[in-house]
Amino acid sequence: MQSLTVQLGERSYPILIGSGLLRQPELLLPYLPRKKAVIVSNTTIAPLYLDCLAKGLRANGIEVVESVLPDGEQHKDLQTLNQIFDTLLGNRCERSTTLIALGGGVIGDMGGFAAACYQRGMPFIQVPTTLLSQVDSSVGGKTAINHPLGKNMVGAFYQPKIVLADTSTLNTLPDRELSSGLAEVIKYGLIRDLPFLEWLEHNVESLLERNPEALAFAIHRSCVNKAEVVAADERETGERALLNLGHTFGHAIETGMGYGEWLHGEAVAAGTMMAVALSRLKGWLDDADVHRIEHLLLRAKLPITGAPIAVDRYLELMRHDKKVEDGRLRLVLLKGVGSAIVSDDSSDAQIRVAIESRLPNA
Amino acid sequence: MQSLTVQLGERSYPILIGSGLLRQPELLLPYLPRKKAVIVSNTTIAPLYLDCLAKGLRANGIEVVESVLPDGEQHKDLQTLNQIFDTLLGNRCERSTTLIALGGGVIGDMGGFAAACYQRGMPFIQVPTTLLSQVDSSVGGKTAINHPLGKNMVGAFYQPKIVLADTSTLNTLPDRELSSGLAEVIKYGLIRDLPFLEWLEHNVESLLERNPEALAFAIHRSCVNKAEVVAADERETGERALLNLGHTFGHAIETGMGYGEWLHGEAVAAGTMMAVALSRLKGWLDDADVHRIEHLLLRAKLPITGAPIAVDRYLELMRHDKKVEDGRLRLVLLKGVGSAIVSDDSSDAQIRVAIESRLPNA
Repeated sequence: MQSLTVQLGERSYPILIGSGLLRQPELLLPYLPRKKAVIVSNTTIAPLYLDCLAKGLRANGIEVVESVLPDGEQHKDLQTLNQIFDTLLGNRCERSTTLIALGGGVIGDMGGFAAACYQRGMPFIQVPTTLLSQVDSSVGGKTAINHPLGKNMVGAFYQPKIVLADTSTLNTLPDRELSSGLAEVIKYGLIRDLPFLEWLEHNVESLLERNPEALAFAIHRSCVNKAEVVAADERETGERALLNLGHTFGHAIETGMGYGEWLHGEAVAAGTMMAVALSRLKGWLDDADVHRIEHLLLRAKLPITGAPIAVDRYLELMRHDKKVEDGRLRLVLLKGVGSAIVSDDSSDAQIRVAIESRLPNA
Repeated sequence: MQSLTVQLGERSYPILIGSGLLRQPELLLPYLPRKKAVIVSNTTIAPLYLDCLAKGLRANGIEVVESVLPDGEQHKDLQTLNQIFDTLLGNRCERSTTLIALGGGVIGDMGGFAAACYQRGMPFIQVPTTLLSQVDSSVGGKTAINHPLGKNMVGAFYQPKIVLADTSTLNTLPDRELSSGLAEVIKYGLIRDLPFLEWLEHNVESLLERNPEALAFAIHRSCVNKAEVVAADERETGERALLNLGHTFGHAIETGMGYGEWLHGEAVAAGTMMAVALSRLKGWLDDADVHRIEHLLLRAKLPITGAPIAVDRYLELMRHDKKVEDGRLRLVLLKGVGSAIVSDDSSDAQIRVAIESRLPNA
């Protein structure tokens, strides 16, 4: 088992990474203030792992309530969130009851937001079961639901008490979801960790083959990167925004195509190539850089062109993004491979050219 | 104009109290980080005051969006909250746009919760227009919506940037709502400010007659009390719970009768008498104390008996309250007039007797 700490003063918490951790409920016990917990999961993950976790907790005297939600980004909405509240109230959960999110990014985002709001805040634990949630969304305290007009538009910063990443759950992860997670892994290399990017260029096939050592290394290294950024800027007033490479473009794809059509990491990969194209236009990357990034994403089985949406619609959707300020789009671009900046001085014309160069009919 | 500060370190903010402040939009300008604001109000208050505030802001170059909600506690729900999000997204509000809640406690609670969640937090200003919101709910950062199974069950601690209490808005307040506000005013006297209670005993009729000086004094003194408690315990881990005198009983009345049937202050007044009855049973108050409190509430035109709900149902509803811990009810009781404590050692039998002694058929 590997571990690291997200340093946030009073709100610091550990991330535990290892195989079979779900079968060690004693790891969670010190983080439960009362002998009651609610596990929030979905219809895909619950049949695989919920029983194991619930039984282990019950064997330790914990009363466990279960809230099993429909699976998929299209359910990350107010209505499904309310299902969690119904379960919490219906089972007399108190504000000292702990909410455990068992699943991927959608479950973590929605469970975390429910925990942030229920009785104005209850203890919260992340048990991510997908690569994407283990390397990114379970760490750092961003929680949210989607609105029809924009992704993650309603949410809270709310830190978990502990993150328990059981890498053996990746054995049941569909290939497409594994690749989706790799988009966020590659992101860390691109924005701030060139040695890690080089390691990925040597090991991406091992990751796709689910080599346990390679996965454990990539997850730990990703979490180290994320934890450093979050510790420096919890509320995203500065550096944390760099973690959104490809996300403003990507959110437009997810919202525009209908939530759930594209996986988050797929949209981020295509969005990253749009950000790369714009960085190329600005002269910050050369053609070799562009091909290098494209090649790695392709090897990770990720899309390198966006969804077939009109360019005007891309721009309209992007203007709903959280990173808009006084009407100006603030985009994360690359100043070189391994180095990112936030830039708000791209013209609409430049952004259009970048998007168009990465559309499937281009 | 009177002013005071809620001392919360980086999140400290001023409360301005005075007549005609709504016509001085320049008071708000320093608290708007961008030249865009959304005013959230309701169908009762908007026709009276929204134009005045919006025009004043627009005259100062602020773009103003309006979100007018249906009036009443029965609308303090997820569906109405979503109306605010629809307006925010539909009008491209950014996370630096300021949300201004113009109305009573329901608008402040719901507007504040929307501000806490929209893009994970946007700047927020309280402009309370009822006595209850000016003396209590607009100060301290508690925001929430109701759930069918419990009042204020979903919410956030989220502090405003400034509270602007224009006392001239009380001239249009219905008598019943004025009395409702007095329940929270009297509460401060009962739990921690005996001299204020004595002042109220001399001046309650002046307040009902809307004497401006009396109202201004009562509002300021209430806010001073609230600000002190909130500064000492923002997240209600200790002393702040004392502000909930009568509220666990009162919330049961509001939820049990259907939101909007009883005004919040009416339910708090009846609930206070139940807490007083329980304190009497424990021997902490004598009969003279009970009559003294009863007499003051009656003079304030407030109910001193609860809603006709079965006692079992009261207990069931109270067990959904946020102050339940490991299944035990934690109730605010009086150790004497002017002094409150949190007590969790009342038996169900004792609580039953206290409730029954304060039911209309008792």
